[in-house]
Amino acid sequence: MKLYTYWRSTSSYRVRIALALKGLEVEQAAVHLVRNGGEQHGEAYRALNPQERVPTLVLDDGTVLTQSPAIIEYLEEAFPLPALLPADPVLRAKVRAVADIIACDMQPLHNLAPLTYLRRTLGQAEAEVSAWIGTWVGPGLQAIETLIGEEAYCFGETPGLADVFLVPQLYAAHRFGVDLGAYPRIRRIEALTEKHPAFVKAHPTNQPDGE
Amino acid sequence: MKLYTYWRSTSSYRVRIALALKGLEVEQAAVHLVRNGGEQHGEAYRALNPQERVPTLVLDDGTVLTQSPAIIEYLEEAFPLPALLPADPVLRAKVRAVADIIACDMQPLHNLAPLTYLRRTLGQAEAEVSAWIGTWVGPGLQAIETLIGEEAYCFGETPGLADVFLVPQLYAAHRFGVDLGAYPRIRRIEALTEKHPAFVKAHPTNQPDGE
Repeated sequence: MKLYTYWRSTSSYRVRIALALKGLEVEQAAVHLVRNGGEQHGEAYRALNPQERVPTLVLDDGTVLTQSPAIIEYLEEAFPLPALLPADPVLRAKVRAVADIIACDMQPLHNLAPLTYLRRTLGQAEAEVSAWIGTWVGPGLQAIETLIGEEAYCFGETPGLADVFLVPQLYAAHRFGVDLGAYPRIRRIEALTEKHPAFVKAHPTNQPDGE
Repeated sequence: MKLYTYWRSTSSYRVRIALALKGLEVEQAAVHLVRNGGEQHGEAYRALNPQERVPTLVLDDGTVLTQSPAIIEYLEEAFPLPALLPADPVLRAKVRAVADIIACDMQPLHNLAPLTYLRRTLGQAEAEVSAWIGTWVGPGLQAIETLIGEEAYCFGETPGLADVFLVPQLYAAHRFGVDLGAYPRIRRIEALTEKHPAFVKAHPTNQPDGE
């Protein structure tokens, strides 16, 4: 398998964590989202991914998979162990809901494209952009803090799907200067993952294209 | 089961379609997102859904499920027939990717909260808000048009998960005045679903709280 990735993309980071947790080695191809006007907009990459976004996972038979949540569900189904989701449908829904809060209500609003639009098209200054980011990140983290339990990770004693989405979101929160003081459960999980080999391996600064 | 829903919320609409396709009858509780400053912010509802968003599905044993993608995956696992996803993991990933384009890259950006923020906090006029919406809806639909096939529905001869997400997105696109002329496959699917009983039943204007 070959993963098209960008070191600082939180969507790419999710897939890297899932691959590392499952012990899967993949070839990585860096797509620089800023340099050269954005390498994701080049013709060769667009043929792989019509959305011109990362990540893209190409399977050994050439099949192209896009969208990090769909890719991670694929990895869970094709490589079931270690499991990222519990077996019970209700518990699976609770884990997925936390991933969805991040994937649907937080990250899309502070993704590169909307922030660039706020800055360039709507002429917003950095203070306004920061306030925008905080408007989505704070309530999202607050909801997650309420929904996760008291176990070591978000749901259980080993890392799962919710942790795969949460850790990149925390990386983004730090980058954007969001204070995590109000979320003790989340900070406890973050501290644990900082020492976990799969999370360390997947971290942006440990990537070949990391700057 | 009891579904907390708002007639015009596309996330609620997705869940209503999935329930109808599976032939599941649920009690509906309307949560008016605009009236009274937004009923989703009331104390009773916040206790159910800490994100103060719709939909919320309460199971017969009182279990509370949130986030429409997680709820729909739960319905698929708890009530497998008729299936909304194919059996093959690669095909499942392709179907889910189309749903994710909508759930992660389109709807979050034209959801009520960000549009209200653009208008009230950033003081943007309706022309600017429309341009913002078009920036996310157009490329998303273009990518979906490329990724879906030539079968009756997005993937296959019966409606599936991608259709469950696509139809509410098209409802939003019409509401926002987005031209669908460039997407013939999508328009063909839309025409088919307009005559499908489950999609008709789930349509916003056919809800008890529809205005």
